[in-house]
Amino acid sequence: MKLTAAQPRLDHESRIENDDHHAIRLWLRLLTCTNLVEQHLRARLRKQFDITLPRFDFMAQLEREPEGLTMGALSQRMMVSGGNISGIATQLEREGLISRSPVPSNRRAFCVTLTREGRARFAEMARAHEEWVAELLGHVSAPDCEQLMSTLKQIKMGVDHIAG
Amino acid sequence: MKLTAAQPRLDHESRIENDDHHAIRLWLRLLTCTNLVEQHLRARLRKQFDITLPRFDFMAQLEREPEGLTMGALSQRMMVSGGNISGIATQLEREGLISRSPVPSNRRAFCVTLTREGRARFAEMARAHEEWVAELLGHVSAPDCEQLMSTLKQIKMGVDHIAG
Repeated sequence: MKLTAAQPRLDHESRIENDDHHAIRLWLRLLTCTNLVEQHLRARLRKQFDITLPRFDFMAQLEREPEGLTMGALSQRMMVSGGNISGIATQLEREGLISRSPVPSNRRAFCVTLTREGRARFAEMARAHEEWVAELLGHVSAPDCEQLMSTLKQIKMGVDHIAG
Repeated sequence: MKLTAAQPRLDHESRIENDDHHAIRLWLRLLTCTNLVEQHLRARLRKQFDITLPRFDFMAQLEREPEGLTMGALSQRMMVSGGNISGIATQLEREGLISRSPVPSNRRAFCVTLTREGRARFAEMARAHEEWVAELLGHVSAPDCEQLMSTLKQIKMGVDHIAG
């Protein structure tokens, strides 16, 4: 593939060639779209709230679980390794946004909850984040959105099936 | 949202609540699907070829550009910051898989190409990678795939429009 003046954005999809399998094309478009939206959200969170995306995700998971989550559960939900999240937890705890308490049934495990301040700070960020997502993806029509949700669900189930 | 025994996989979507905007639901599903496929590809590349996903992506971009790419162009296409890719380049160069040469018109820039060995190694990995992607996403029917490609393209263009 050659660069020409008329060529649009260069991203993961730039490596597609004409004879590529349709699954590869689909995968690279999925990856590009997700990365693109993520880049915007990351940049805005950083600029407006001076927070990284993984820290925001960490707090978002906790916000839905008033009774808290273990580090293992957080790691699974954030779809990242435990090593990555323990640094985030240490930092958020130092800033008073989360608290960690031992799990009685497992002396190696910690249960993490948002503090009152963490909850207030997250609420403010979540409102902005939701507005940004609506701005970035809200132009997809309702039927297209429904169709997309359904096909993505199929993919999710298919991958789970292969993994299981 | 409470955990119950009947609940399926816990991931980014676990933080959805009933009153969330449809754009948020769409975004979290998009993120989950992409992360899920990426996790599988990452694990298989690591297991079968002892290579990280960013290193594979780096070589994939170069494979399509026999004349090479500057580090800036690679960074843009991989949708990551320059700092992240310079470490990858150093490592791949040390292993003889890529070579870097100065760009005459810009003394601060380098042009990167795959070596003959890099090209051979990448070809082997790319075949396996394509099979895995076909296995993970190939079950999407042709019409669903077409529809998905089209909606994702809309999203991509919408985001570019907002950013521009």
